[in-house]
Parts: sequence; structure tokens; C-alpha cells
Amino acid sequence: MDSGYKGKVLDVIKAQNLQVGDRILAKNEKVSFTGILMPRSELDDEMHIILKLDDGYNLGLAIDSLSLQKLPQEEIKAEQPAFEERSDPSLPKVSIISTGGTIASKVDYKTGAVSPALTAMDLYQLVPELGKIASIRTEILFSLLSENIEPKNWASMARAVVGHVRDGAQGIVITHGTDTMGYTAAALSFALKGLPVPVVLVGSQRSSDRPSSDAYLNLKGAVLTAASAPFAEVCVLMHCSSSDGCLVAHRGTRVRKLHTSRRDAFESVNAQPLAKVEGGKIEVLGEYRKRSMGSSLEAKATFDEDVVLIKSFPGVPTDLFDPIIHRDFHGIVLEGTGLGHFPSSSFGQIKRAIDGGMTVVMASQCIWGRVNMNVYSTGRELLKLGVIPASDMLPETALVKLMWVLGQTNDPAKIRSMFLENMAGEISTRSEYIEKEEESSE
Amino acid sequence: MDSGYKGKVLDVIKAQNLQVGDRILAKNEKVSFTGILMPRSELDDEMHIILKLDDGYNLGLAIDSLSLQKLPQEEIKAEQPAFEERSDPSLPKVSIISTGGTIASKVDYKTGAVSPALTAMDLYQLVPELGKIASIRTEILFSLLSENIEPKNWASMARAVVGHVRDGAQGIVITHGTDTMGYTAAALSFALKGLPVPVVLVGSQRSSDRPSSDAYLNLKGAVLTAASAPFAEVCVLMHCSSSDGCLVAHRGTRVRKLHTSRRDAFESVNAQPLAKVEGGKIEVLGEYRKRSMGSSLEAKATFDEDVVLIKSFPGVPTDLFDPIIHRDFHGIVLEGTGLGHFPSSSFGQIKRAIDGGMTVVMASQCIWGRVNMNVYSTGRELLKLGVIPASDMLPETALVKLMWVLGQTNDPAKIRSMFLENMAGEISTRSEYIEKEEESSE
Repeated sequence: MDSGYKGKVLDVIKAQNLQVGDRILAKNEKVSFTGILMPRSELDDEMHIILKLDDGYNLGLAIDSLSLQKLPQEEIKAEQPAFEERSDPSLPKVSIISTGGTIASKVDYKTGAVSPALTAMDLYQLVPELGKIASIRTEILFSLLSENIEPKNWASMARAVVGHVRDGAQGIVITHGTDTMGYTAAALSFALKGLPVPVVLVGSQRSSDRPSSDAYLNLKGAVLTAASAPFAEVCVLMHCSSSDGCLVAHRGTRVRKLHTSRRDAFESVNAQPLAKVEGGKIEVLGEYRKRSMGSSLEAKATFDEDVVLIKSFPGVPTDLFDPIIHRDFHGIVLEGTGLGHFPSSSFGQIKRAIDGGMTVVMASQCIWGRVNMNVYSTGRELLKLGVIPASDMLPETALVKLMWVLGQTNDPAKIRSMFLENMAGEISTRSEYIEKEEESSE
Repeated sequence: MDSGYKGKVLDVIKAQNLQVGDRILAKNEKVSFTGILMPRSELDDEMHIILKLDDGYNLGLAIDSLSLQKLPQEEIKAEQPAFEERSDPSLPKVSIISTGGTIASKVDYKTGAVSPALTAMDLYQLVPELGKIASIRTEILFSLLSENIEPKNWASMARAVVGHVRDGAQGIVITHGTDTMGYTAAALSFALKGLPVPVVLVGSQRSSDRPSSDAYLNLKGAVLTAASAPFAEVCVLMHCSSSDGCLVAHRGTRVRKLHTSRRDAFESVNAQPLAKVEGGKIEVLGEYRKRSMGSSLEAKATFDEDVVLIKSFPGVPTDLFDPIIHRDFHGIVLEGTGLGHFPSSSFGQIKRAIDGGMTVVMASQCIWGRVNMNVYSTGRELLKLGVIPASDMLPETALVKLMWVLGQTNDPAKIRSMFLENMAGEISTRSEYIEKEEESSE
């Protein structure tokens, strides 16, 4: 089998007597990785090996800074400690759990590409001020680009949070890729029941070795928030403007990435942010769930992955529903137009899905505002078919919530009542939030 | 066959000797409709008949204000003139083409529902000041809730615009439901080649018989803009804030409905609006295509309906692609995360689609910003598979453009170059628009 390696990298592989498929340890004085040596597909590269880590992630590693060593199968955990600790017992205990993403990545100057390469300990070493804010413990949970994070990874994160809190953590920071950080924040908001401390998701829009990086400030603010914010909620902490002046903590169920590249890409939708973080101070902006000493924390982290989101558009073909109906999915989030509409040409398929036992909910692609399916005939007909309106939930939050609800029960009445209940700040009544809303549309 | 009608409405139907399936004329002194009498499914209503109009739209009509009359098949056009005219020859000629939606609807006080019931002439009669701004001609093209508007309806609108311009119109107003008005605006932007006059799409978020209605001001502003704006572009004109102070014209390819109910629900994304309209004055805000006297206007209005949009989310099942691949669709718009990413679990299906001849493009669910698929390995792998990046186009505009491009050619090289070319202001270079963009992410 042609390994695809050539030039210098092939020489190194041969010299070490390594073969594609071998389990190897690659390390230098700072980092170490174990994984399976993978074949190479990029033909123009003579400097990198590809390692498939145990979490399935393929990592490209430059061989010139690493020593390579063949391992027997399964000899792995001892080589890369999952936890590392630095303690100043007088400071609040904060755990940093790294999951991958730009905040934990480096630019590959050869290709211009960004790859996840920094461990939580690396981050800590890059921002030594963290040690003055909190007594830090770090865990590398996995290293995934966030577009590849799946519901099962939400469950791992929820269980990791529970573990750290039971071990005494007074705040949790989770470093995460920004692409799907909003989805994860919503998932943890539903999954962590009885949360006594803040869980702060943090990412960066620019990798930490770029001059414009937001990684340092975001991470510092996240540790500060985890250590000393008065709320016990899941939030996303990112820049509040494109300058380095201030940070903002968004409630996990209300946050959406709304720009591809700006540092202040995240916004709270249909809600005030939880807090502003500026000059080392946390200013809480509204109602919140308070910190507590109780230890009733529990991870209800079963998510039903057989849920899909279908966005409406002119001419949306009814065929799109076929595999969902045939493969017997459990839930559909319709991302409809306006107040919660979908082309009437799809009503037959929607009815089939509901009659077949699927839960179908309606959110709006408008993003801001509230679905109201009583205004137009389209909405009323969908309600009659059994479609459940998602109120002022983000479509992404409605998706995560439906996955979570279907993971807890399969009783149709309970599914409906749980979906309609405000569980983690994801639904508000009109009077609670009026900044972006004027008088109603009915 | 049980017609579903009962009570008073059944008495009327029986008295007129009408049956479900009959072609009937329903009219009073103001309006008249012809269509097929449909069976009734709402069991608690004794006051309305349902008429299927010739464009397929089902209309509910209260029988107490109407006379009903059975027609021979096809006797229709003479009863409902398509065009109505009021001329003051000294004023600019503006045509108002009505297509349905809230701006052309009335609240049904029995059910609280809004139904399309006003013709273009009704609108004109409701806002007599229009006659002081322009010499108005009206056409009822169809009456559809905009969630039911399909690409074939875009083609009808494009052809109607061409007809009115050839007949001397110096500006066109199209009244339209707000749900999909942005999609239609993009479609007309691509379809109308050599446009010499403004085409102003206008809707309202509150029906015209409600005190808070934005219908009057929007319609007046639209006629003013059509009559006297210096630009010859397709735009959407709506409120610029929730108060009644000013209106704003958004370029057709850059506009998105971003709130379910606010009067200022529409925003320009990744671009400045075309113009502000306030106190009877039009202030143009940037570069624009100028009005001309030329008559090279042409409707290139073939849209390929075999195009779908798939939005990414954590755990998106690969099954979603099956019907698209099996049914041999022609194009897919991926609404990815961040800079243009999709879970790698779908790469196999995306490759199959492209290898099978489909065009696959990538836009971002972030809405604001620009896809850049060279930064992360995920993006670069998708580019290698042949995915075409949609730059800073809205996902909705990318969808409409792909439908349009595939309607013009099936040569893969041409499809790619047309999709990547800025045709109607839908793509900008970084330097052209920096308000919401800071330094790039690479």
C-alpha cells in the first residue's frame, strides 16, 4: 500500500521502521500525541504526518520538531495525562476543559491553515495571568473542529462538567470552536440540571499566534467569569465589539454566531446578555440563576440524534421529507418563514410525519422575533396538523431542545409540554423582553 | 360527496343550486373573484366559502357580503379586469403589480386571521395621495401568501415588469407578502436584464385595516421611489425603524427579513442600503445602477427548481442527501457554519453529489460576513471536492442565484464562472464594504 508520504517525511518514517496503521507516540518537550499513523493524500507536502487520534480526529504534525516512536496497541493514556493541575489554594478553583477549535489551535505557516494543536495546559502557559485569577485545573477532553462536534460530544462535555464540579470546581471554562459553540451552549443549558456554578464556553475568532487574536482576552475573561460571576448558568463569553475593550457573556440558549469573522460575532437574540465583563469587573445585566453550594448537579445528557432541521425556501421540494419519513426519524424542526409558515405544498408530508409519530416544531428563519401561528391561515393549518410553535426560541436552540426532550421521554403529551416549558431562559413572555420587539403582530 | 358546508353558508349554496367543483363568480360592489367552489374542512364555520382561484390560491370569502353566481367553465377574464388605470399624464407613470400578502390583505374579524382580499385598485383607493405622486396603473398578477410563492411566480413577475416597462412605466411597484419578499427581490435582480427603471417590492407587517399598519406609508414611499428614484435596480422598501419616520430601500440581492413582526424587519446584510426615503425625499446612500431611457430590458426568467438548501447542524444525518442524489437534483446550497464548514461525516455524500454532476455551493448560516474556505482544513477539503464558495452572498441569495444560473446554462465551467461573478450587487470585495467587517480572518 502506498502510504502517500515522500521526501523527508518518508525518510523519517522509514528510519523509524514505521508503517501506516501503526500506533505511534509523537512528542517534543511541550506536547505529545498518540494515534494511528494515517496515509497521506496531499501530494505536495513532505513535512507532515497525519495521526488519527483516539477521538477520531486527524491531526497533521510537522515531523521536524517531533520524535516519533512506535507503540504497542492501547498504550496511550499514561503518555498524555488527561488532567493537569496548578494550585494556589487561596484562589477560586476553576477547571478549563478543552475541546478544540481556534482558541486551541495554531496557524500552519506552510499551508496557511489553522490546526488544533494546543492543549489546555499550553493555553495556561500562554496566559500565565490566569494563575492570578484562579487555581486552574485543565483537562483535554477532545480536540475537534466544532463543525464536527456531535450530540454525543455534548454528553461528554456535560459529564466532564459534573466530574469537575464534584471535585470542587467553583467555575468551569470550556474552550470550543466558534462554529457550533452556540449549539453546544444550548445543549449544556438543557443537560446540566441543578448547576451550582458558571459554565463559560469560550472560543476565539483568530488563532492565538496571530497579532489580532482574541484568544488571550477571551480566555482571561472566561476564567474571571467562571471564578467570580454570581450566576450559575451556561454562557458564551466573547468580545462585545471588534475592539479589545470589553467582553460579553451571552445566555447559552440565546446566543448565535452572527458573523463569519468578527471578534464580536456572537450576539444574544431576543434577550439581554447575561453580563458585561470589562476592566476585570463583571456587570450582570438582568435576572439570573444564582450560584449555590448545593451539589444536586446532574447531567441529563441523552440527546436523540434522529432529529433534523429543514429550512423553508421558495419551491422547497417535498422529496426532502422522504428520507425522514422512511427512516423513521423522531423529530423535525421546521425553520419556516415569518411568523412560522411553510409552503402548503409540504403540508401533506408534514401531516404524514406527525401521523407517523414524529414531533414537528416550528421556528422562524427571521431569527429575531417570535413565531405566532394564529395570524395567518398557513400557521393555523399547521397548528391543526399538530406542529408545535417554538415561541421566541432560536431555530438552533429549538433543534437542540427537541433532541434533548426526545432523549428524556417518548410520551407525546410530555414531549409537547416539555418543549413548550421555559427550562433555561430559552423562552420569554412578551413583557420580559421588549428591546427588539414592538407591539405584537396579532 | 359531503361538501363540509353547513348552517347559513350551506343554505346559500343550496339556494343558488351550487355544488362543490362548480366554477363561480363571487362579487359585491367592490371586489369580484372567480374560481372553483372547494369543499370545507373547518367544521366550526358557517359563514365562509372556499374558492380556488385560477392561480391555485384558496381564498376564504364571507358569504354575507357577496353574491354568488355559477359560471360556465373558463368564463373568467372578462369578469375581473387584469389592468385598471387612473391617469394624470403630467405625472410619472408607475405600475402597481399586486401579488398578495399582508399589504393586500384584510383581517378576518371572525377568526382573527388575515386573508388576502385587496386588489391593487383597492390599495389605490385606500391611499388616494398616490394619484398626486404618479399616474398609476394597477395589475392583479395573483394573490398568494408569500410562503407559497414559487420560482415560477418569480418568472411571472419578471414578465409582468417587462410588459409594463414596454408599455411606458417609469417605475414599478410590486406588492408582496413579506415572508419571502427577499427571495423574490433577489430573483428579479438576476432575471431582469437591462432594467431601465426602479422595481420596488413593498409589503407590510400589519394589515391595512389595523391602526398600527405600515401599509400606507410603505405603499406611498414605494410609489414615490418608483416614480422618482435615480436608480434602476430591484429593491425592497420598508420601514427603517419601528416608528413611522422613515423608510429604507434595500438592494434586492442584499436584503433579508430579520424579525418576525417588527415594521423594520428588513435589513441590508453585508451592504449599505440603496437609499433612505423620508419626508417625501429620496437620499441615495452609495453606488447604484442609473435609470436609463433604453429599452433593452429582457426577462431571463428561467429558474431551475431542482435546487435545494441544506442547513448544517450538529449531527446532521447523511440521509438528508439521499433523495437529492437519488432524484438527480441539479444544485445544492450548503448553509454551513462559520467561514463555510460542514461536518466531515457528510463529505462522502457531498462528493457523490458533485461527482454525479450537481453544483454544490457554500454559504454561511452566520448571515453576516464572508465564507472563506482556505483557513481551516474542513474548508480546503470541501474546495477540493469542488464546492463553490458563495463569498459574502446571503444563503437565500445564493440559493436564488444558483436556481437562476442553472436555468441559463448546464455547462459546468459557465455555471461556476456565472455563480462567482457579481451580477446584481450580491457580491462585494472586502474594500467595498467594511462597516460590519473588520480585518479579515485569514
